[in-house]
Amino acid sequence: MAGKQLNGVNVQQLVDTVNAVKADPDIARFRFRAETDWIEGGHSRTKIQGFYGAGQEDASRTKPFIIDGDEPPVLLGGNAGANAVEAVLHALASCLAVGFVYNAAARGIRVENLGFRLEGDLDLHAFLGLSDRIRPGYQNIKVTYRVKADAPREQIVELCDYVQKTSPVLDIIRNPVPVTVALES
Amino acid sequence: MAGKQLNGVNVQQLVDTVNAVKADPDIARFRFRAETDWIEGGHSRTKIQGFYGAGQEDASRTKPFIIDGDEPPVLLGGNAGANAVEAVLHALASCLAVGFVYNAAARGIRVENLGFRLEGDLDLHAFLGLSDRIRPGYQNIKVTYRVKADAPREQIVELCDYVQKTSPVLDIIRNPVPVTVALES
Repeated sequence: MAGKQLNGVNVQQLVDTVNAVKADPDIARFRFRAETDWIEGGHSRTKIQGFYGAGQEDASRTKPFIIDGDEPPVLLGGNAGANAVEAVLHALASCLAVGFVYNAAARGIRVENLGFRLEGDLDLHAFLGLSDRIRPGYQNIKVTYRVKADAPREQIVELCDYVQKTSPVLDIIRNPVPVTVALES
Repeated sequence: MAGKQLNGVNVQQLVDTVNAVKADPDIARFRFRAETDWIEGGHSRTKIQGFYGAGQEDASRTKPFIIDGDEPPVLLGGNAGANAVEAVLHALASCLAVGFVYNAAARGIRVENLGFRLEGDLDLHAFLGLSDRIRPGYQNIKVTYRVKADAPREQIVELCDYVQKTSPVLDIIRNPVPVTVALES
């Protein structure tokens, strides 16, 4: 790929992408997909491969990514994978990482390392059908960033703030997303 | 493990868990965790192992689950893993699968197979810093269930409705979760 790389990001491609979206807003419309099959007990397996975006069906993935989900024994599973709410923490950190690194590259900041620790508090009463007052999902999530980069701390803090405003997964978690669930006929 | 299995779920353990939570509500308090390190470009890697729950630190996982996240080339990545918003779809389906199968077991319904197709619409304007009116996250998510089980359709529909009310990840996506993000000092 031509163009200067910073943090493993092709900065020219980033600029080109922004300009392409400015010229044709439809390029920014994406539709992501997943297919999940239940296996046994708490164990299911998700396949992720194609998506629509930038005006066409993506063909870059020659085989699907496989993600297994399961529960630990204390939650009646067999530990075949991280559970669903742990996968949410992964999704959040992975999103913040991309946002931080891409925006750092756009600002000419070299990132040496970047890490996240996440924790989420959840009360099982609702899942077990024992309360309709306690919410089923996380009551709160705490994220801690660790960053080493060639920029002063105030610039890093400002970048973190910007990333929070523009992170797709943080928005999905912090704000309501309409979800329709339908049984195939 | 002793006790009748249905759908790979130990029904007696399920009943015991519900009774244990009734006797001591603190048993239902869980804290899940993840650690994510950025690798390069859009690529990061999450490790998930320990959690606190049922009154103690879990020790059932002898090694961490590893989930890689990355972007496809059209989003400046190298396809080292599903991206963050695709991981959200996995988390959602994996949660609905557990909810459906555990509650089916509790009701004596034998599930033969169960699958989900998910799609989510997302507009990249916000992520690219080109709009503060368009939300960064999914504008909507569609989930389709496919179920084969030894129960009449009305019972399956009722079960699907119940699962939606009690699903942790569906709650996290449909409703606001407070998230704090802090930079380590």
